Amino acid sequence: MSIISETPKPPYYAVIFTSIKIDQDKGYDKISKRMVELAAYSEGFLGIESAREDLGITVSYWKDEKSIIKWKANFEHQKAQKLGKEIWYKKYKIRISKVERDYEF
Amino acid sequence: MSIISETPKPPYYAVIFTSIKIDQDKGYDKISKRMVELAAYSEGFLGIESAREDLGITVSYWKDEKSIIKWKANFEHQKAQKLGKEIWYKKYKIRISKVERDYEF
Repeated sequence: MSIISETPKPPYYAVIFTSIKIDQDKGYDKISKRMVELAAYSEGFLGIESAREDLGITVSYWKDEKSIIKWKANFEHQKAQKLGKEIWYKKYKIRISKVERDYEF
Repeated sequence: MSIISETPKPPYYAVIFTSIKIDQDKGYDKISKRMVELAAYSEGFLGIESAREDLGITVSYWKDEKSIIKWKANFEHQKAQKLGKEIWYKKYKIRISKVERDYEF
């Protein structure tokens, strides 16, 4: 996804997902796209931004913590999380943060 | 920078900088690298993660809000911010957020 998310006035939440992937695809691309679609239907979803070079960074935005917990528990997402650990990711880090202020140009 | 930052136990701050750049370099690459070096010497700096495809995402981590404000006010950084608006960026958004929890694999 190549656009900057139109998020509401803070406060809201950001999940910063930083990862290092294996070189091969192994089904990642398809499921990753599906997860973006699925997240967009999840309650409290506000937007998602993503870029990958050696490091991948995906930031998803959420109304509140409850929405984040609900998305994490989504059944199809749970299956993808399992594949992520077993196959696609060498390493990742997830940071849950509360956006307090923002500005743009 | 291609590694996942080794940040301390939360709470700490994350500055999520999402941008769309012009296609040409126009001095961006050199100054962008210099800013990463310079930020690393700034008080309260904890790490930085970056990736760019169509969209660029740079997340820098800071001890507290005071450190973020100090880095923003750095003279050399101010000059780079001005160039960013005048030359390199079509659009950007900066979100200041407080990391409340994190986990990794």
